[in-house]
Amino acid sequence: MKKLMNDPENIVTAFLDGLVAANGERLQRLEGTDVITRRSFKPQKVGIVSGGGSGHEPAHAGYVGEGMLDAAVAGEVFTSPGADQFLAAIQAADQGAGVLVLVKNYNGDVMNVEMAQEMAEAEGITAEMVIINDDVAVDDPEQRRGIAGTVLVQKMTGAFAETGASLSEVKRLAEKAVSRVRSMSVALTPCTLPAVDQPSFDLAEEEMEVGIGIHGERGMDRREVASSAEIARLLLDHILPEIPQGAPLAVLVNGMGSTSLMELQVFANDVIEQLDRDIQHTFVGEYMTSLDMAGVSLTLLALDDELAEHLQAPVKTVQWKQ
Amino acid sequence: MKKLMNDPENIVTAFLDGLVAANGERLQRLEGTDVITRRSFKPQKVGIVSGGGSGHEPAHAGYVGEGMLDAAVAGEVFTSPGADQFLAAIQAADQGAGVLVLVKNYNGDVMNVEMAQEMAEAEGITAEMVIINDDVAVDDPEQRRGIAGTVLVQKMTGAFAETGASLSEVKRLAEKAVSRVRSMSVALTPCTLPAVDQPSFDLAEEEMEVGIGIHGERGMDRREVASSAEIARLLLDHILPEIPQGAPLAVLVNGMGSTSLMELQVFANDVIEQLDRDIQHTFVGEYMTSLDMAGVSLTLLALDDELAEHLQAPVKTVQWKQ
Repeated sequence: MKKLMNDPENIVTAFLDGLVAANGERLQRLEGTDVITRRSFKPQKVGIVSGGGSGHEPAHAGYVGEGMLDAAVAGEVFTSPGADQFLAAIQAADQGAGVLVLVKNYNGDVMNVEMAQEMAEAEGITAEMVIINDDVAVDDPEQRRGIAGTVLVQKMTGAFAETGASLSEVKRLAEKAVSRVRSMSVALTPCTLPAVDQPSFDLAEEEMEVGIGIHGERGMDRREVASSAEIARLLLDHILPEIPQGAPLAVLVNGMGSTSLMELQVFANDVIEQLDRDIQHTFVGEYMTSLDMAGVSLTLLALDDELAEHLQAPVKTVQWKQ
Repeated sequence: MKKLMNDPENIVTAFLDGLVAANGERLQRLEGTDVITRRSFKPQKVGIVSGGGSGHEPAHAGYVGEGMLDAAVAGEVFTSPGADQFLAAIQAADQGAGVLVLVKNYNGDVMNVEMAQEMAEAEGITAEMVIINDDVAVDDPEQRRGIAGTVLVQKMTGAFAETGASLSEVKRLAEKAVSRVRSMSVALTPCTLPAVDQPSFDLAEEEMEVGIGIHGERGMDRREVASSAEIARLLLDHILPEIPQGAPLAVLVNGMGSTSLMELQVFANDVIEQLDRDIQHTFVGEYMTSLDMAGVSLTLLALDDELAEHLQAPVKTVQWKQ
């Protein structure tokens, strides 16, 4: 698998350097870490931290900025950053009002954030954690993974923190957002890790993998490739029963890395046509990828007035501006 | 080649429908055409129109909005729209101050715009044309293709038009921008058309194609795959002699469709490290794609004060917001 890179073992560092080199007026890298933060912090604002393994770009460093994250921690590809890295992010993000860490539901990430929380508390920094688990491809809610819905939670939580809300208020909003956002993915091709020459799983030319995770994990089901309209139906049928009925929706159509924008927009068209609900916002693009995987995830978020307000609030990050 | 689509013959229509369905507050489709326009126009502003074959998303419809294009015309995949479609866009964009059509340098596009110009003149609408030819992979300047540099020309021209400048002034700025922007591309894989099951050319696992166009055209040279740093050097060596020396630069690192953001940012890092010039802006992402091609193009724009002002002016489109 050909990739645009130099040393595969060094790809995360080169990525972070490139991001900061291209956006130096906005972003900085904490020395000696793989933590990207805002260049300037807002005093007394609750700090919002997120992070996890790399390979999901633009998540999470692309979402650092006003109205969203204060700091993002990048692990090696598909590998949780260590507790010390999360701690460095928490220390940087703490401006006297405490820190909320938004973490996708993977054992390694959750464990390392918990350790970082304890280390922060020992230094007198209050750090709370909210776990995001939007992937309905997994039946057991305890085991549900965090996938693309994560970025909507980050967006709304970050906007609310920007208003000066307290840590307990910000945590309450993040938990509400988590409870109302659900996603599911389909892969048309597997992904290939930079340091490995083999794809993460094999998929025949006429097959697709339904319910895959964002780390090249196998899905819940493998079947013949379907049309965009059929895939839209399939994902809607899994997601719709899992979100509050009647509420207006935000829709996120997320490309997994190598699916063209033309295809994503065709898929969005099918979702909108089949979704007999009030759709207030539709986002289409690459928000949470899985390296070079071809495929798509669909996220539905059941809005209320408070969530809608923070979803549409101004945001200034490398990836998300409005 | 698996794609997320329904009927391949209908993919452009489905794409345009999806774009409008997801952005109805901002965009509309002119009935009976493949023209996307702003929902509301600014009276007495010079209209800015662009367009060409599809397959380069988000170009051009993703750039319709305040501070950039008034209307974009979408042809079938890699096929120029007809003169009647360009005419419809010109008619819609004309708000009494004339229209400038920005067209990439391909025979079909230029011919159809010329015909549309004549038809518009017959209706009393003044329509001027500026041809964009930023691709230095072709030696003969007359034959140089328009590739990713196009979007920078659209951005600056659109911003200037928004200030109320006259048609002749806007045309002057567009021509200056064209004279100062140069690009070149490398493909790691070919692209595959939606209605065709074969890639546009064959490329062995260890090969890359240097100087490809955005329509799956063969390049000027085929060689062994190089590192990101080596590709940066190669493209810089071709582009730098072609732009004014000494001026501050804007850099655009553009993904061809299926190259991950992580890789694009690694490449941007290599470009910035090797470019011993004053870099005022760096843009990294998918701006002008070639379906599902893997690869990258590099664009350098030599700024002056006027161009810099319009490059950083506010813009509100689906794809480009600042």
